[in-house]
Amino acid sequence: MTGTLYGVGVGPGDPELMTVKAIRVLGGASVVAYPAPEKGESLARSIAKDHIPVGCAEIALHLPFDPNRSSDKAFRDGAGAIAKHLAAGRDVVCLCAGDPMLYGSFVTLSAQLEGRYPVKIVPGVSSLTASAAVLGQALASHDDSFAVIPATRPAEEIERLVLGADSAAIIKLGRHVAKVARVLERLGLADRARYVERVGMPNERIRTLASAVTDGAPYFAMILVYRRGEAWRA
Amino acid sequence: MTGTLYGVGVGPGDPELMTVKAIRVLGGASVVAYPAPEKGESLARSIAKDHIPVGCAEIALHLPFDPNRSSDKAFRDGAGAIAKHLAAGRDVVCLCAGDPMLYGSFVTLSAQLEGRYPVKIVPGVSSLTASAAVLGQALASHDDSFAVIPATRPAEEIERLVLGADSAAIIKLGRHVAKVARVLERLGLADRARYVERVGMPNERIRTLASAVTDGAPYFAMILVYRRGEAWRA
Repeated sequence: MTGTLYGVGVGPGDPELMTVKAIRVLGGASVVAYPAPEKGESLARSIAKDHIPVGCAEIALHLPFDPNRSSDKAFRDGAGAIAKHLAAGRDVVCLCAGDPMLYGSFVTLSAQLEGRYPVKIVPGVSSLTASAAVLGQALASHDDSFAVIPATRPAEEIERLVLGADSAAIIKLGRHVAKVARVLERLGLADRARYVERVGMPNERIRTLASAVTDGAPYFAMILVYRRGEAWRA
Repeated sequence: MTGTLYGVGVGPGDPELMTVKAIRVLGGASVVAYPAPEKGESLARSIAKDHIPVGCAEIALHLPFDPNRSSDKAFRDGAGAIAKHLAAGRDVVCLCAGDPMLYGSFVTLSAQLEGRYPVKIVPGVSSLTASAAVLGQALASHDDSFAVIPATRPAEEIERLVLGADSAAIIKLGRHVAKVARVLERLGLADRARYVERVGMPNERIRTLASAVTDGAPYFAMILVYRRGEAWRA
């Protein structure tokens, strides 16, 4: 009997946004895994830490933060360590900030283990809906189309994707925030853009887009733009 | 002192996908409201029913299921009933299946009360990520753009929106499923489309798209299409 790999979404930052199911599955774990920076605390672990059973084995996947450095080794090492537990019949709970299936590193990890071991997913609250909650602005309603756009895409791609949808979330802003702001200005949408960073975390902040451009944005920051109807309802 | 209107996401169907925060906020309620069909049980209420305090007042918003009939009166009547409690200083918890800010009727309701009363949102697990969990298929990863497309849109709009993104969720299928299937066939994407209905509910089902076209799809059904890389990475 092999163990099962669980990908468990723990929500965007506030431990209260964990689901009952995530807490139950984690509470029964004998092994937990999570992505972690090379130095400092794992976000996913910090969200879920009150529910990690005493004596649980822990596997940190030390992913390089710099997107130009390969994370292949970190995933390979992590998958290897996890596979040993699974082969020995122990379930492994992998903690995922937000939701495992929406821009999560879990998919890369599980791709190395799928087929050999059963994989189960527990969905979590995404930072997309948590940001909408904090900003008091709907992501989409009725027949709107909605786009999620990584800010890492080239400016002309972002422009095309924003124009193609009725509303959009532009995520992973970081050092791309000024580029995104220029696109939105060019489209006449800067006034409709709302910015939030580190939603659900202790240092969550709502700021103007202009101030984010001036002071810089963290990776966990997004812009919501609602241009409902212009493209389609008019 | 007026009361606060809470829009509380209770997740897509499985009561275990409620968050700790949703349960806490609901547990302190003296008034709950929820959308309900004109006949039969409210989905949002059925998900959360174990956590509704004894003696809590309940307000059902009887929304017509037929999209051709106006729901204006139901929202107006509901907002009026809720406003009386808020004006008297009582908080009102409005239960929302999935998440309140993602295609929810809560936005229409709260628009009638905003400005007069404080509104707070508790985000919930969306049926989008819950469907991805059940299907074992990521919605998006890395630099993918992701589109959410209501099946109620015309075929040529759906085609444009699917082609514009790296992956897509086509939601609210119902009687539009055959139209959507034809679009995906025309685009050569039918083989990459995965179908699930009533995710998280007792009668959740994964089916082939062809069988959904033959037998019909419910409103709470969606297709995930992952065409990663073709448009952008090549």
